Amino acid sequence: MNKIIEKLSNKNTKSISKAISIVENQEDNYLELLSEIYSYTGKAYRIGITGPPGSGKSSLTDKLIEKIIKNNLSIAIIAIDPSSPFNGGAILGDRIRFVNKFKSNEVFFRSMSTRGFQGGLAMSSNLVADIFDASGYDVIIFETVGVGQVEVDVMEAADTVVVILVPESGDDIQMMKGGLMEIADLYVINKSDRQGSDKLFASLNKALEINDYKNWIPKIVKTVAISGEGVDNLYSHIMEHKDFLNKNMIIKKKLNERYISTVKSFISKKLIDKFWSEKADKVLEKELTVTHQKRLSPYQIANKLLK
Amino acid sequence: MNKIIEKLSNKNTKSISKAISIVENQEDNYLELLSEIYSYTGKAYRIGITGPPGSGKSSLTDKLIEKIIKNNLSIAIIAIDPSSPFNGGAILGDRIRFVNKFKSNEVFFRSMSTRGFQGGLAMSSNLVADIFDASGYDVIIFETVGVGQVEVDVMEAADTVVVILVPESGDDIQMMKGGLMEIADLYVINKSDRQGSDKLFASLNKALEINDYKNWIPKIVKTVAISGEGVDNLYSHIMEHKDFLNKNMIIKKKLNERYISTVKSFISKKLIDKFWSEKADKVLEKELTVTHQKRLSPYQIANKLLK
Repeated sequence: MNKIIEKLSNKNTKSISKAISIVENQEDNYLELLSEIYSYTGKAYRIGITGPPGSGKSSLTDKLIEKIIKNNLSIAIIAIDPSSPFNGGAILGDRIRFVNKFKSNEVFFRSMSTRGFQGGLAMSSNLVADIFDASGYDVIIFETVGVGQVEVDVMEAADTVVVILVPESGDDIQMMKGGLMEIADLYVINKSDRQGSDKLFASLNKALEINDYKNWIPKIVKTVAISGEGVDNLYSHIMEHKDFLNKNMIIKKKLNERYISTVKSFISKKLIDKFWSEKADKVLEKELTVTHQKRLSPYQIANKLLK
Repeated sequence: MNKIIEKLSNKNTKSISKAISIVENQEDNYLELLSEIYSYTGKAYRIGITGPPGSGKSSLTDKLIEKIIKNNLSIAIIAIDPSSPFNGGAILGDRIRFVNKFKSNEVFFRSMSTRGFQGGLAMSSNLVADIFDASGYDVIIFETVGVGQVEVDVMEAADTVVVILVPESGDDIQMMKGGLMEIADLYVINKSDRQGSDKLFASLNKALEINDYKNWIPKIVKTVAISGEGVDNLYSHIMEHKDFLNKNMIIKKKLNERYISTVKSFISKKLIDKFWSEKADKVLEKELTVTHQKRLSPYQIANKLLK
């Protein structure tokens, strides 16, 4: 066992935080670190949870965390927090207070913002997950707000994707538009004691029937996060999906896909970084001094630079 | 004047549609086409309109289109439609019917889906806008649904960005989280006859005060799209913003930024396409046959491939 793994596997908060910041800031040794921990990854189960603001996502995630801890599993939560100077702080504060309650290294919370990351948030959150994975956390939760491409990208790194909807919010349509329909393994109808819950269930069910799923058919779970109703059921369904992935060797395929996409991202980044030398920048800058009508088209200058 | 421009400048529907499909499908001659039209671009004014589903974005855009046509300006609308098998069709149908009403080449409508584009939707929609620009359309509208990264990327290609909010929807918070706060030039509070309109105005106003804008301070416009109330005012504010960009030479800066980002995207794509030879693919595939614990880390194999 190498030295880094030895430190991480004690789930020492300081060691883990340091490893994360090395990766986040892409410090000089970050690739060595990631290389050293790589063979110790692939053990944690990765759950993605997403839903629009107001869907009760945080409350439901809290209840799920409690359930996981009760099952004597260690858990790391990565909250993908779109940069918000307005309300991000408050939401994070609630979550930090919730996690601190457990006073244990077996629960680790980390938020990541959309700002300041080279290589994209999906990649960065996946690398941070690798650190938790190598540290021996049993479960990793990726928590995102919203329904955009970033969320879809982040969710693609999860083994089980949980999409939360609420009755009568219109969010169901937005969800479907955002491409989450293609990646959801479980749908949660939260606040299911509200009017419109049965209607949402029916329309979702119908949408699932139209789709031609080859493997797993997504399940729908009704919950009331505040009271905890349905959380046990949600947990069972996550475990059921986990078993399904294991039995059908899909989990191995997912690991390979993650490997390929990491390799490809790193190669792309290196190729692009290497290309944009000072000289190339200067050629481009010079062209900008020519008037719009007279300058080379972007494709002509690109080809010139590539030569 | 070259041959392609001659055809396009008649605003011949068939010629424009053909040019768009050459670019969308990246047919063999697509870069030549884009190169030939490039020096004829940079004249159209590009407006980005975004807002969540249910914000009345379509109705408001329709009213704005009518206003633009009344001012004897030609207009092309690019609707960025996240791929949806469920409801995308109906919304598109309404818009097509609306545009067809005008029975004129001076109004052109094109929808683009998130699926099937190499190089990203923001890039593709920008290239299609270049075709409209070279064809002599005075105004180009990018219309997107949602608040994710794709929307932000698309909006960055617009000269004036209009973000639509509605009272009491909670969308204001989502908008702010999604990063649109940073790129909005104009806020529209639509359905402003509803309760909560003044409250939204006040909170938005406060948020604008906190931000430290260097140049243009975003304006807030109240509208009721159904009745057309406030649409003239919205149009005036767009024109005011346009004048501001022209007077302060910001429009030139925006054109240069678009030029740089197009060059960079094309170079990245070419570098990556060139790198992934059959040989490189095989090296990666071979590594996947090794068990997870024994294989090279993604960073090690990336470096091996780069050598």
